[in-house]
Amino acid sequence: MASSGSQTKKGNNHSDHLVQPTNPNIAAMKEDVLYHFSLSTSTHDFPAMFGDVKFVCIGGSPTRMEAFAKYMAKELGLDHPGAEYPNICGGTDRYAMFKVGPVLSVSHGIGIPSTSVMLHELIKLLYHARCSNVTIIRIGTSGGIGLKPGSVVITQQALDASFKPVFEQMVLGKPVVQRTRLDEKVAQELMQCALELLTFPTVLGNTMCTSDFYEGQGRLDGALCSYTEQDKQKYLKEAQAAGVCNIEMESSVVAAICGACNIPVAVVCVTLLDRLEGDQVSSPHEVLVEYQERPQRLVSHFIKKRLAAAQSP
Amino acid sequence: MASSGSQTKKGNNHSDHLVQPTNPNIAAMKEDVLYHFSLSTSTHDFPAMFGDVKFVCIGGSPTRMEAFAKYMAKELGLDHPGAEYPNICGGTDRYAMFKVGPVLSVSHGIGIPSTSVMLHELIKLLYHARCSNVTIIRIGTSGGIGLKPGSVVITQQALDASFKPVFEQMVLGKPVVQRTRLDEKVAQELMQCALELLTFPTVLGNTMCTSDFYEGQGRLDGALCSYTEQDKQKYLKEAQAAGVCNIEMESSVVAAICGACNIPVAVVCVTLLDRLEGDQVSSPHEVLVEYQERPQRLVSHFIKKRLAAAQSP
Repeated sequence: MASSGSQTKKGNNHSDHLVQPTNPNIAAMKEDVLYHFSLSTSTHDFPAMFGDVKFVCIGGSPTRMEAFAKYMAKELGLDHPGAEYPNICGGTDRYAMFKVGPVLSVSHGIGIPSTSVMLHELIKLLYHARCSNVTIIRIGTSGGIGLKPGSVVITQQALDASFKPVFEQMVLGKPVVQRTRLDEKVAQELMQCALELLTFPTVLGNTMCTSDFYEGQGRLDGALCSYTEQDKQKYLKEAQAAGVCNIEMESSVVAAICGACNIPVAVVCVTLLDRLEGDQVSSPHEVLVEYQERPQRLVSHFIKKRLAAAQSP
Repeated sequence: MASSGSQTKKGNNHSDHLVQPTNPNIAAMKEDVLYHFSLSTSTHDFPAMFGDVKFVCIGGSPTRMEAFAKYMAKELGLDHPGAEYPNICGGTDRYAMFKVGPVLSVSHGIGIPSTSVMLHELIKLLYHARCSNVTIIRIGTSGGIGLKPGSVVITQQALDASFKPVFEQMVLGKPVVQRTRLDEKVAQELMQCALELLTFPTVLGNTMCTSDFYEGQGRLDGALCSYTEQDKQKYLKEAQAAGVCNIEMESSVVAAICGACNIPVAVVCVTLLDRLEGDQVSSPHEVLVEYQERPQRLVSHFIKKRLAAAQSP
């Protein structure tokens, strides 16, 4: 184990920002089983496996996160014929995880609870691996409000369903409200990357995070629907007035948990449809696939710029 | 299309209970794209594909739901050498779906939002397929309270994190509270099946449904933890006093949405650990695998009994 050496190294560099859970119990645990990753500190050498991670990209779909890892390998010049990108969480089907150089690509499933479980275990993983200066970016899909489908939204503030920049969670049976905290600098850098790429419309705006895709987002096409088209339009217009550019189901918990642990975090989602025009996601498959590559291209550009800046004297 | 024929047949049987969304808009839709299943009424013949479904078993893990489909095929005498069980939702990785005779096996991922999306599309699928007399059963995993690990809990009432039998959801930015409604008769029949099998401890009790696995369930081993061991024990003891036998993350939305659509529904979960004793899920893999088969064995027995009763004169 290279623990003392690496600690000395860290001690020498005052600009290093180590990933640190806010829970003091973690440091005292002899073994930590990350059950939903099928990884454990007693069976896996976290510093060796993950110590060099600087960027964690997360998204709902495991297939998309695998595709992103392969794409990043090409972009970083780490791809070669016959290269394999094994799923590090192959012992479970709850989440999928892939690593390419300093980039970790992890799926989080649909919704706040699924994402919250993943983030708890991810932050503990980064801590056990003694990672430093890590940036987390969610690359996802969303419904837009008043934007051309295929537009990319870099989230300024992650809002709840009543347009407040908070994440509310029940802890020991009582509601606890946390602020959602996204990194302003990372968002600005991402916006600069979009201006450099100039290949798809990109905006910086607020993102509304809901706990349901149908009634929770004012859709008229769910199995249940207790309101009218007029009610829906009124709600979406109110959201638009609050600066909401898109709606998805994970940004608030990502911003709250990473923010609480002081990990710089950003959210970049493509819009698959304009919710002012409809509810169904019915664009052709190949169109949707290309849309979903847009946040990946943007984030790849960001990562390459950051890595180049870190290497320059 | 056999629509008029099958409607006549339904009309002749007054005991038939058709699956019906509560949303009146669905009947008027020309096409319904079930986006997260990668199925559409314009490209798939739902009555032909799903018309004979009588039991829908749902659970978090796609691999487990595939294993359940294969197990049911054997149990129902529908398995044969070289038989394949293709994933009906193969066009997406959001959910997985398998069909064996009258049994549909569908994954729902982790947590209420992920499960809610799946249920909306499932109920619309069953409606478009003109299914009747369908029973939905969640077979899942959970943390027990004061039970030997491996015990199976058949849920009496699905409770929220403050022990109320309700499901609260934001609709158009306002909280809407629904009752959780599980089918008492199905639960009693399942309990009877457990008594007949007598191979693992089974209880009928309340299930607490939370929106997080760590702080939301009072765990001390998450990346964040804002309370003490004493606070945790106090909360779990209060839950126990409210009749809570186990804790999981989906029962309340299952009971609320299916209940609202008058579909008989039950929840059967195995407990992987006793939360009064600890937080980590650290039993050996093969032990956990056997535990997870228990709800499957119980529900298989239930389905076989129901099918035998339907065939008897």
